[in-house]
Amino acid sequence: MLKKLKRVLIGRPLKSKAIEDEKYGILWGLPILSSDAISSVAYAGQEMLLVLLPAIGLMAYGQLPGISFAIIGLLVLLTLSYRQTIDKYPNGGGAYTVAKENLGLIAGVSAGAALSIDYVLTVAVSISSAVEQITSAFIWLKPYTVIVGIVLVLFMMVGNLRGIRESSKFFGIPAYAFIFGIFAMLLMGFVNYNGNVAAPPATVQNVVKPIAIILVLRAFSNGCTALTGVEAVSNAVPNFKQPSPKHAKIVLLLLATIVLLLFGGTSILAYFYQPEIGEKAMLIQLAEQIFGRGFMFYYITATTFIILVMAANTAYSGFPLLVAVMARDGYAPRQLSMRGDRLSYSNGIIALSAAAILLIIIFKAKVTSLVGLYAIGVFISFTLSQSGMLVRWFKEKGKHWHWKAFVNGLGAAVTGTAVLVVAVTKFHEGAWLVVLVIPILIIGMLRVHKHYKAIAEQLRVTNEELDQMDFTENLYANRVIVPIQSVNKSSIRALRYAKTISDNVVAFCVTIDEEYEKKIREKYSHIKIDVPLVVRYSPFRKVVEPLLRFIDSEEYNYKKGDIITVILPQFNVKSFWHKLLHNYTGVYIQRELLKHKHIVVSIMPLQLKSDDTALKKFREKQ
Amino acid sequence: MLKKLKRVLIGRPLKSKAIEDEKYGILWGLPILSSDAISSVAYAGQEMLLVLLPAIGLMAYGQLPGISFAIIGLLVLLTLSYRQTIDKYPNGGGAYTVAKENLGLIAGVSAGAALSIDYVLTVAVSISSAVEQITSAFIWLKPYTVIVGIVLVLFMMVGNLRGIRESSKFFGIPAYAFIFGIFAMLLMGFVNYNGNVAAPPATVQNVVKPIAIILVLRAFSNGCTALTGVEAVSNAVPNFKQPSPKHAKIVLLLLATIVLLLFGGTSILAYFYQPEIGEKAMLIQLAEQIFGRGFMFYYITATTFIILVMAANTAYSGFPLLVAVMARDGYAPRQLSMRGDRLSYSNGIIALSAAAILLIIIFKAKVTSLVGLYAIGVFISFTLSQSGMLVRWFKEKGKHWHWKAFVNGLGAAVTGTAVLVVAVTKFHEGAWLVVLVIPILIIGMLRVHKHYKAIAEQLRVTNEELDQMDFTENLYANRVIVPIQSVNKSSIRALRYAKTISDNVVAFCVTIDEEYEKKIREKYSHIKIDVPLVVRYSPFRKVVEPLLRFIDSEEYNYKKGDIITVILPQFNVKSFWHKLLHNYTGVYIQRELLKHKHIVVSIMPLQLKSDDTALKKFREKQ
Repeated sequence: MLKKLKRVLIGRPLKSKAIEDEKYGILWGLPILSSDAISSVAYAGQEMLLVLLPAIGLMAYGQLPGISFAIIGLLVLLTLSYRQTIDKYPNGGGAYTVAKENLGLIAGVSAGAALSIDYVLTVAVSISSAVEQITSAFIWLKPYTVIVGIVLVLFMMVGNLRGIRESSKFFGIPAYAFIFGIFAMLLMGFVNYNGNVAAPPATVQNVVKPIAIILVLRAFSNGCTALTGVEAVSNAVPNFKQPSPKHAKIVLLLLATIVLLLFGGTSILAYFYQPEIGEKAMLIQLAEQIFGRGFMFYYITATTFIILVMAANTAYSGFPLLVAVMARDGYAPRQLSMRGDRLSYSNGIIALSAAAILLIIIFKAKVTSLVGLYAIGVFISFTLSQSGMLVRWFKEKGKHWHWKAFVNGLGAAVTGTAVLVVAVTKFHEGAWLVVLVIPILIIGMLRVHKHYKAIAEQLRVTNEELDQMDFTENLYANRVIVPIQSVNKSSIRALRYAKTISDNVVAFCVTIDEEYEKKIREKYSHIKIDVPLVVRYSPFRKVVEPLLRFIDSEEYNYKKGDIITVILPQFNVKSFWHKLLHNYTGVYIQRELLKHKHIVVSIMPLQLKSDDTALKKFREKQ
Repeated sequence: MLKKLKRVLIGRPLKSKAIEDEKYGILWGLPILSSDAISSVAYAGQEMLLVLLPAIGLMAYGQLPGISFAIIGLLVLLTLSYRQTIDKYPNGGGAYTVAKENLGLIAGVSAGAALSIDYVLTVAVSISSAVEQITSAFIWLKPYTVIVGIVLVLFMMVGNLRGIRESSKFFGIPAYAFIFGIFAMLLMGFVNYNGNVAAPPATVQNVVKPIAIILVLRAFSNGCTALTGVEAVSNAVPNFKQPSPKHAKIVLLLLATIVLLLFGGTSILAYFYQPEIGEKAMLIQLAEQIFGRGFMFYYITATTFIILVMAANTAYSGFPLLVAVMARDGYAPRQLSMRGDRLSYSNGIIALSAAAILLIIIFKAKVTSLVGLYAIGVFISFTLSQSGMLVRWFKEKGKHWHWKAFVNGLGAAVTGTAVLVVAVTKFHEGAWLVVLVIPILIIGMLRVHKHYKAIAEQLRVTNEELDQMDFTENLYANRVIVPIQSVNKSSIRALRYAKTISDNVVAFCVTIDEEYEKKIREKYSHIKIDVPLVVRYSPFRKVVEPLLRFIDSEEYNYKKGDIITVILPQFNVKSFWHKLLHNYTGVYIQRELLKHKHIVVSIMPLQLKSDDTALKKFREKQ
């Protein structure tokens, strides 16, 4: 039943070779990978104003374009920087890989930790903003903010468990629709603009105060969230069709151009129209001011909502890939590197969704609260990645390396400064949480690695050691115990199997009383097999303890080094409900016995009919 | 880590023989088994008034003693009836057993279903009422009603997982304290009573309406909740020390006497003092009117609270025992009949707690809502149990059988009428839910039984069949496959073990590319063992599919009837966190392979050091 539900939600399993078909070109790669950066139009500018407005009133709108263009300058620098990374890392140059290769282990793991957190926040912030957009257009939805956010994340999760290609088709067209809509709004907004700054909204306080540098820095911190997502392209190079680096570079350039136009344009629009910030999303208010509550207003609302959901999807492309790479390197639990039925990294997708839902619940899906946490992670990984490239140029040299080192070096310096700015100015507004969690993650990752290394060391065997081993001699005496509760087809099958794998077989039965012992001994005597039956008493038919005591007993005469195989039957029934009715004892016995290194547990399946019709057929056949 | 928590909460495992020590005599048996009935003083009367007051105003108080004494009459009848059951069923005469033996399968299962629901409601109602008592004394606790209720259930659960005897000691003394407190209040109330009925409280409407029969019946329905719990004694006969039937009968008699005095007494008190019913619990208000807010007020509050928690504990004595008996008969999943480390039926205790918590959440811990569901279940089982006894007397005859049959027959008739009264008068107030769930449970139980029967039939083998079987011939050719990912100590150990159990062994490796194949083949060549290495390609190192394809291939030459043993290593690491890092692939492979009846999966444990210190020691030893 659970399986059926899974099939309906996730789709039929895909063959492994289908993976190449799931890759994307420029047309579909652009919307998937750029939506994070593009969608930030919906919140970055607004959150800058939310910092400035309460302090300096209407002067805030005047500051907006200036800070925005500083951020756009940073975007240009990052674009140049990351184009170089794509060239050098055609197999996916995430900050983790670049930092680890060039700056060493700790830097790599730090980048991985920072980036992981950033991905989770991408989902949380984008989905929260998406919900904010629609609750701004439809106020009656406001009380359901958190629930709507959670449902959206679950929707993303299922979509991504279904696989990559379907996602790209599903999300490509509305992304272009959003870009078109905002361009239309910019055009209409500039054309209709009457040349005067709009009248100040009633609630904005008009007192003009000196603009403190700290205010500008805090606004800049919030605006920096517009830059998250730039690294997604260079992380995802192997997801592109061949030639992947070329495709990736074109997508990165297109992305930067679009962000530049949209973010810059809406900042100027906000300066012109001065929408009232607070209860409602800025973009939705601009749309209302420019178009009125007509078709275009709903068009902007819908496409903004959708692009934000797609932005969350960027993380669903990036996060599972990142943790899979880290898992393969031994820094994350291995099951994160396993692909699911539909060739997506299921465990990574589920982990990402769970973490995002947690954040949405904790911060009640408030964009303003989440933005405080957002920029740090990604700027740390920016810095580490650029520094890594810088070191690489110095080592490698090559054509134009001075210029290339300068670009990456400048990138590292600027983003490094941005980390400090964000960490300090937003510390009390949530950044402390990220500053706390990153080291915890790093330590965790290093410990995971240490553990896998310790295991590997114990398993390792050299060719010399192998050459010296004598494989002709049987190291282990092989003895078998078959626990039985009664004489039935299952126990007979187990006894027969036992005889084929060993000459030293014992049947072992636990009973409550002598009466049952007599009964089973009588029936057992009909089995003409050379296997003694040992009976032990236990008031609640517990098997494990008496069995282990028997193995230790003088009677059994266990010699160190011998291996004892215990054969357990397992009933296979088809329906989920019937499974609930079986095998609990078996699973318990298996787990307890396997704690002892000299015991091998062999599980013998037995196909059984579980319902009436099947049983009727079975009876007729006999 | 989880294990440690379990130890702290549940206690150290007990040896099986400790079970006799956990049994109780009269002194401790009375408080544990009678608290359900005794504690109903806290809500039965109050819920009767809640039905009458809105309709007939102050006349309600006049009706109270009358209806109460009708209920007490029923109690006397039930007590006589159940004494006869205890005599005939010294091993526990629950309604399930009595009905099944005398009325047949369907009646037995119906009684079991009705009683199960009743136990769950006992917990839900008692705990909800317990919370109502303390929130009546301490109004500021009111907003936390549901949370407090849930915490109390969890507390009960842990207590009961720890075992029976500790419960009886823990709960015995406060039960006597409650009885003493209420007697003191009755005494004080009667002594201080000035002979006039108190002035009508302000909010009670004074309009006198004709008393409809339906009102009296609904009040009677609510009052019947005072009788739930009487059957607990006869269900729990085997929990008493020897001679258990005698001890049980004495406890039943004491119980009835105490309920009679407390329930009747408080009804008269309510008539005298006319407490205002609604926001606050009746008993707490009576205590305040009689004692004022002094020591005795808090004493009554505390002991009432505790006796109600103990009432919930009655269900914890009864429910797990009932479902364990039903599980042993094959009407409930078998794991309900397994005792935990502390000799309590852990699964039953957990199931009861989960169901009660669900009800508390759904009905927001409101006694008035829950009471509507309560009486039906227990009255159905009363009726079935008495009817069963009636039939038994007719079959068995014996001394004074006419009188005994008359008692049980009258009991059956009266409680059967009560079922109809409650079902009809409370249908809209929740009884419909019970009327719906009982048949669902019955169908479920019958299907579980059918399933176990179907399985047993397929496993059954007669002595004649056994005599005809030839055990000298090896039915199954025994072939072994050892999947390996690399050549290491684990794979070498598996190969060696494989060679001891079969001469037909194949090592099987799945790789991504030719490079790895070359590498592993080179290393494998150093193992001088007579086992061919088969390599297959799979882009994501998925093992199961290539392995199954190999088994089906002509190359492997599988013959129908052969058994293939697949050996899987399992890494044993100690800490919970390290366990998370391993064995996921193994579990998946095991599950998938065991779907095929010709494959036996042998799990080979490998003890590994998982942390640095252990590894260091390991290295030094080498």
